[in-house]
Amino acid sequence: MKLILLGCGTVNLSLLEILLERRLDLSARHGFRPKIVAAVDSRGAAVSPNGLDIEELIRVKKSKGSVAQTGSSGRVGMNALDVISTVDADIVVEAIPTNLKTGEPSLSYVKRAMETGKHVVTANKGPLALTADLLPGLANRKELFFRFSGAVGGGTPILDLAARCSLGDRIVGFQGVFNGTTNYILSELEAGLTFEAALKAAKERGYTETDPLIDIRGLDSASKLVILSNAVFDTRMKLENVKVKGIQGVTRARVAHAATRGRVIRLIASGGNAPAVAPMEIPRESPLAVNSAMNVVTFELEHSGSITISGKGAGGRETAGALLRDILTIHAKLGGFNASRDETAPRVATVV
Amino acid sequence: MKLILLGCGTVNLSLLEILLERRLDLSARHGFRPKIVAAVDSRGAAVSPNGLDIEELIRVKKSKGSVAQTGSSGRVGMNALDVISTVDADIVVEAIPTNLKTGEPSLSYVKRAMETGKHVVTANKGPLALTADLLPGLANRKELFFRFSGAVGGGTPILDLAARCSLGDRIVGFQGVFNGTTNYILSELEAGLTFEAALKAAKERGYTETDPLIDIRGLDSASKLVILSNAVFDTRMKLENVKVKGIQGVTRARVAHAATRGRVIRLIASGGNAPAVAPMEIPRESPLAVNSAMNVVTFELEHSGSITISGKGAGGRETAGALLRDILTIHAKLGGFNASRDETAPRVATVV
Repeated sequence: MKLILLGCGTVNLSLLEILLERRLDLSARHGFRPKIVAAVDSRGAAVSPNGLDIEELIRVKKSKGSVAQTGSSGRVGMNALDVISTVDADIVVEAIPTNLKTGEPSLSYVKRAMETGKHVVTANKGPLALTADLLPGLANRKELFFRFSGAVGGGTPILDLAARCSLGDRIVGFQGVFNGTTNYILSELEAGLTFEAALKAAKERGYTETDPLIDIRGLDSASKLVILSNAVFDTRMKLENVKVKGIQGVTRARVAHAATRGRVIRLIASGGNAPAVAPMEIPRESPLAVNSAMNVVTFELEHSGSITISGKGAGGRETAGALLRDILTIHAKLGGFNASRDETAPRVATVV
Repeated sequence: MKLILLGCGTVNLSLLEILLERRLDLSARHGFRPKIVAAVDSRGAAVSPNGLDIEELIRVKKSKGSVAQTGSSGRVGMNALDVISTVDADIVVEAIPTNLKTGEPSLSYVKRAMETGKHVVTANKGPLALTADLLPGLANRKELFFRFSGAVGGGTPILDLAARCSLGDRIVGFQGVFNGTTNYILSELEAGLTFEAALKAAKERGYTETDPLIDIRGLDSASKLVILSNAVFDTRMKLENVKVKGIQGVTRARVAHAATRGRVIRLIASGGNAPAVAPMEIPRESPLAVNSAMNVVTFELEHSGSITISGKGAGGRETAGALLRDILTIHAKLGGFNASRDETAPRVATVV
C-alpha cells in the first residue's frame, strides 16, 4: 500500500516511527506493508515510487530540517500539489497545521488528492469544520475512503465510538471537553495559578495551537463540535453555526468560588438542538470534570442511558495512532487484510 | 435478512420492540429489513419462513407466556435445536440465560447454528468464557460471522472500543468494573446499608443473575475478563485461569473505613499478565470509581496513555442494542448495506 505523507511535523514523524517499530506486527497481523512513496514539508519533498527508506527519512528531517534533503529522493521546492498530482499512491495522509479561517492549504490538498483518485486520511479540523459536507460528498462521488478520526479527540476514538453507539441505539445529544489546552489552564487555575501563568505553562508543555487564541476563545472546541455533530446527527453544520464563548473571561477567583461549592469550571461543547461551546460550572464528580489535558465526551442515548469516553486529546504519538487506525481500516476495506491470519480466537468479533 | 431468535426473555423482547420502533430508520439508513423466521422459548417455537408478525409475537409472548401460542405459526414443544436444524436463516440471535458451569444449552445451540451455516450473534458469556477459542475457531473454519459485543459491558461497546484502540496502538493491560450488581451493592454499603439489605435492593431492581452468587463471588466479572482478555491479547484463556475473589467478605465497616481515607471499594477485574478479579480499595477520584450499576474499563495503551469508557452494563434494552449493533455489522459486511444511502456528509468516516 502506497502512502503520500503531507506535513512532516510531530504527527507524521510519529507515524513514521510507529511504522518502523511495528513493522513486523503490522505485516503479520494486518498484512499491511506500507511504502512511503512521497513525503512533503514546507521546503520540498522526498519521492520514491519504490518506497522511501523510513529510517533515513526520519534522520534527514530531524537533522537537516527538511525531507527535501533526502539523498537522491529529495526534491527541493517541490510542493504538495505537485506531489499529489504526479505521484501514484493509494492514500494521502495529511497532517499539516490547522487553519480555521479558510481551511487552506489542507482543503486544496484533500480536494486534489480525491480528484486524482486517492483515498484520504487526515487529522485536520479546518476543512471539515468550515465546509460541512464538501469533502465527504466529493469522496462519496469519487467512491473514495475519507477518514478523519484523529480530528476529534486525538488518539481517543470518539468518532468511532459514536458510530458504534449509533448502530444499536440513537444518540440524542452529547457534551464534551474537546480542548486539552483550555482544560489544562482551568485545572491550573484550580491549583492557584493566574490565567497568564497557566497559559504560559500550557505553552511550555506544547499543548497550545500555534495561535493559542484558537484554543482559548473556544474555536478549536467548536470545530470539533461541528465535526462530531455532523457525524452523529447527519447534519451539514459549519463552524459559523456554533455559539462560542471561550475561557478568556474565567478568572482564578471565579474558579475558587466554584470550588467552595464542590464545583469546577470546564469548557463544555454541547451537541444537539443548540450547538454551543461555553465555560460551565459542573460538579467535581461529573464524568466531564476531567483534569489536565484530557478530553472526554458523554453521549446521551435514546434508550441506553449515557456512555462516556475519556483519554488524551492530543499529542503527536496519539494523533499518529489515530491516522494509523484510519489507514488500517481503509487497508482492510480494500481487501488488503490477510484473512488467513485472522484465525485467532475472538478476533472474529473485532470491528474493522 | 432472516433471523432466528433463541430465547424470548427481556433481551430478545427488547430487540423485537426496537426492530418495530426503528423499522423505517433501519430500512432507510441501513437497508436493513429483517424477517423473524423463528422465535424459540422454553415451551416451544413460532415459525414462519416469510417472517413472523413482530407485533403479534410480542403480544402473544407477553399475554400467553410463550411464542408457541402464536396463531398458525406456533409450534408447542418444538425446541431450539429442531428450529436451528430445519429453518433457513442468515443469523441466529441467541439470548438465553448464561450457564457458567457447562455453557449449555447455549454452547450446543451456537455449534448447531454454525454447523448449519448460520452466522451467530450472542450476548451469552458462558460458552465464550468456558471454551476459549472453540466457537470462534469453528466460525472461522465455516467462514461465518460470530459476534458477541453484548457479552461484555451490555450496551457499552467495550469490545468494539478495544478493537479500535488495538489498531492504532497496543493495549498492554486493562482494569475494569464489569458487574453492575456488585457495584450497586458496594455503592449501597457506602450509603450505610448492610450487605444483606444491599443485596436485597439489587435483587428488587432486577440487577442480579438468576443465581446472585455468580455476581457476588466474582464469576460474572471473571467471565467477562476472560472474553475481553482473549479479544485484546489474542490468548485462549478460560474461566479457570482467572484468580477470582468476590465481594462476599466486604462489610459495611470495611467500606466505611475506606471512606475515611477518601477511598472506595470496587470489584476490579485486571487483564494482563496476572488476570484476576478482586475487591480493591481505590481513590474516590479514580475513573474506575463508578457508582450504582455502571460498568467501566480503562485500557492502558503502549504509547497513548489510557482510555476509559463507562456506561450501563446491563439491562434488556441495552443488551438488545448490542445485539442489533452486531446484526447490523454482519448485515453491512454481507453487502446488505445500501451504499447509495451512504452519501450524507461525515458518514464517510463511520465504522461498519
